[in-house]
Amino acid sequence: MTVKNAFYAQSGGVTAVINATACGLIQEARRHPERIGTVFAGRDGIIGALTEDLIDTRLETDVDIARLRHTPSGAFGSCRYKLKSIEQHRVQYERLIEVFKAHEIGYFFYNGGNDSMDTAWKVSQIAEKMGYPLTCVGVPKTIDNDLPLTDCCPGFGSVAKYVATSVREAGFDVASMARTSTKVFVLEVMGRHAGWITAACGLASESAGEPPHILLFPEVPFDPERFLARVDECVRQYGYCVVAVSEGLSDASGKLIAESASKDAFGHAQLGGVGQMVAQLVKDKLGHKYHWALADYLQRSARHIASGVDLEQAYALGVAAVRFALAGKNAVMPIVRRLADAPYRWEIGEAALSQVANVERKMPPEFISADGFHITAACRAYLQPLIEGEEPPPFRNGLPDYVRLKNVAVAKKLPVFVV
Amino acid sequence: MTVKNAFYAQSGGVTAVINATACGLIQEARRHPERIGTVFAGRDGIIGALTEDLIDTRLETDVDIARLRHTPSGAFGSCRYKLKSIEQHRVQYERLIEVFKAHEIGYFFYNGGNDSMDTAWKVSQIAEKMGYPLTCVGVPKTIDNDLPLTDCCPGFGSVAKYVATSVREAGFDVASMARTSTKVFVLEVMGRHAGWITAACGLASESAGEPPHILLFPEVPFDPERFLARVDECVRQYGYCVVAVSEGLSDASGKLIAESASKDAFGHAQLGGVGQMVAQLVKDKLGHKYHWALADYLQRSARHIASGVDLEQAYALGVAAVRFALAGKNAVMPIVRRLADAPYRWEIGEAALSQVANVERKMPPEFISADGFHITAACRAYLQPLIEGEEPPPFRNGLPDYVRLKNVAVAKKLPVFVV
Repeated sequence: MTVKNAFYAQSGGVTAVINATACGLIQEARRHPERIGTVFAGRDGIIGALTEDLIDTRLETDVDIARLRHTPSGAFGSCRYKLKSIEQHRVQYERLIEVFKAHEIGYFFYNGGNDSMDTAWKVSQIAEKMGYPLTCVGVPKTIDNDLPLTDCCPGFGSVAKYVATSVREAGFDVASMARTSTKVFVLEVMGRHAGWITAACGLASESAGEPPHILLFPEVPFDPERFLARVDECVRQYGYCVVAVSEGLSDASGKLIAESASKDAFGHAQLGGVGQMVAQLVKDKLGHKYHWALADYLQRSARHIASGVDLEQAYALGVAAVRFALAGKNAVMPIVRRLADAPYRWEIGEAALSQVANVERKMPPEFISADGFHITAACRAYLQPLIEGEEPPPFRNGLPDYVRLKNVAVAKKLPVFVV
Repeated sequence: MTVKNAFYAQSGGVTAVINATACGLIQEARRHPERIGTVFAGRDGIIGALTEDLIDTRLETDVDIARLRHTPSGAFGSCRYKLKSIEQHRVQYERLIEVFKAHEIGYFFYNGGNDSMDTAWKVSQIAEKMGYPLTCVGVPKTIDNDLPLTDCCPGFGSVAKYVATSVREAGFDVASMARTSTKVFVLEVMGRHAGWITAACGLASESAGEPPHILLFPEVPFDPERFLARVDECVRQYGYCVVAVSEGLSDASGKLIAESASKDAFGHAQLGGVGQMVAQLVKDKLGHKYHWALADYLQRSARHIASGVDLEQAYALGVAAVRFALAGKNAVMPIVRRLADAPYRWEIGEAALSQVANVERKMPPEFISADGFHITAACRAYLQPLIEGEEPPPFRNGLPDYVRLKNVAVAKKLPVFVV
């Protein structure tokens, strides 16, 4: 068998478990020295390939590669850099092939979301056109949970577990203080286009009256009057109200609430974010004291409370990517296929990149309750397994002990290329 | 021996471990039925005593009481309600004694911060003046870590562990994306008057260059020029900059930065919080893309990442409070006395409420580095032990399994009293 090198890159927003995918992929590659030589990792994602900045992962010890499994973020660097169409960016695609050729790379693994799967697909096409033998495998990753065909996306389950845990904990806090202090608490979470993360907050509420009481989805146009009425009802009934709101909350015209602030609508010229805006609206109209929290990057980097299922899937997809490549599968992406909800059973499946690229999976309408403020039983059945299991990282000096790799690049062989 | 009932109340902002103190206290009381009859808990703190809304903790099972050890928030409700001087509020103090008398309460346990220790002390004085035999024990609790005499305050260590963990995790995230995305990340933390929590963020940085790079303390007047110069330096040197800022950050005149926003100073009429303000300042002056997070209640309710040491101390102080009371110690507060830094050793000590009430412990100046932007080795030596140890709660359905008590009140015996 011919030995070829591999190229692996992380793309887009990082997650608590994308390094677990890298771990699975590199460990599996190391088990096949007869087929795979060096796994090169792109420094800062695909930019590393374009600039020939190729990290030699052979220089990382087995122990350090194993530690990737419990380290959040992108160990080799990731980037927000989308290759456009082959027509527009032909020179970049050709450069990729040149770099691959120069370093005898026969396997291309691209670990990302929708855009990255599109890029991986295009790279497979250009390689074919240029007659360069390259096996391209996309590896799913995105907290947005919006890739099609796969049951879920690695990274999402851990964000889901983090936000549901956080909103439950804050809910206990608010409940115990509401009589004389904060009555309304708002947690703003990620998910600009789809309400998956907002929906996950709903898992914290296991019976009527348990917080969060209101979820504000990007899929449901924000109606201030109805929202205020529901908040009022909760405060009367439970003494307090906990709200989870998507950063992507929009009005009926599709305009982001976070961008629509004006003196007319809210009485304030500028506010911090949609979380504060809806909280301030409550204060202005109902007079309740509020607090709000903005989880921001904390939610996607919180490896300390990662989902065991998410972690296991992230790792397994990295392993599967190598197995697919070694089996000669090209322009594919390993996926998670659900076999049963409870107890949850899943297996690795396969999807064609052509079917994945640029297809965004939306949250099904039947996952949102009739009043638009919570999740349905169907949604709960889907989400529940994804947050199961705890696999905390090792701790040292009271803090999670994460690995920083050496990240040494191999010598360049080609002229400089400016991205 | 005479059997007397006990009254226990939680006061002020709740924490991840105040219920562990309640657990220790109730469990220890249950071990002494020959001395302590019922432990009544005030519903919503001292308000429960004033309104004779006394929760009968005998109705809670041993199992549920044990679960308090891993449940954040105040299980019986807490309140922000400060009794003023005896002169101003004499009728309220007298009412407390009336309620205690009606329910044969001989032990008063008040679990809170500075204000509560002051109240406990005053209650002991009024009882004495009124000739009512009452043993008053204050039990420390405050994430602000500002009670004197004790080595630290239960609740603080867990917030410290949470913020240090969070800023480390977000730091890894930002580092991996900085080339093409966010270069400056700001985490806003609690601590309006003292920088203990901000200082704890510094524990995440164990060697030069590791985030957080800049800490903005309430003790150090904010100097925008020096701050921007330091941010610029970090971005040049490390490619990114992580900042932790106290909500209490103030300018040289002592005015809160969060309240001083104006078009003149920041170019914006209103902003979300000091975290966003300093981040926006960086954007305006240096042009870097930023993200910011506001931990808010998440930091003080995050029982899932509580400090083992903090938890153990919180529990032990609850036990000690009962032992003090049974030993006839009045107007005292059990404290933590540090015996050694590394390995950390501590024991329970005793302080007079008269020495504790209204004394605020500040962060020593020698805990802040000369440039004002980080912690010193002395600060690290003090803080490090307080975040050690993990004692995660049990999980059910992928989420922390916290207890909700029955909280049934005993029949009232007195006329209604309006607070």
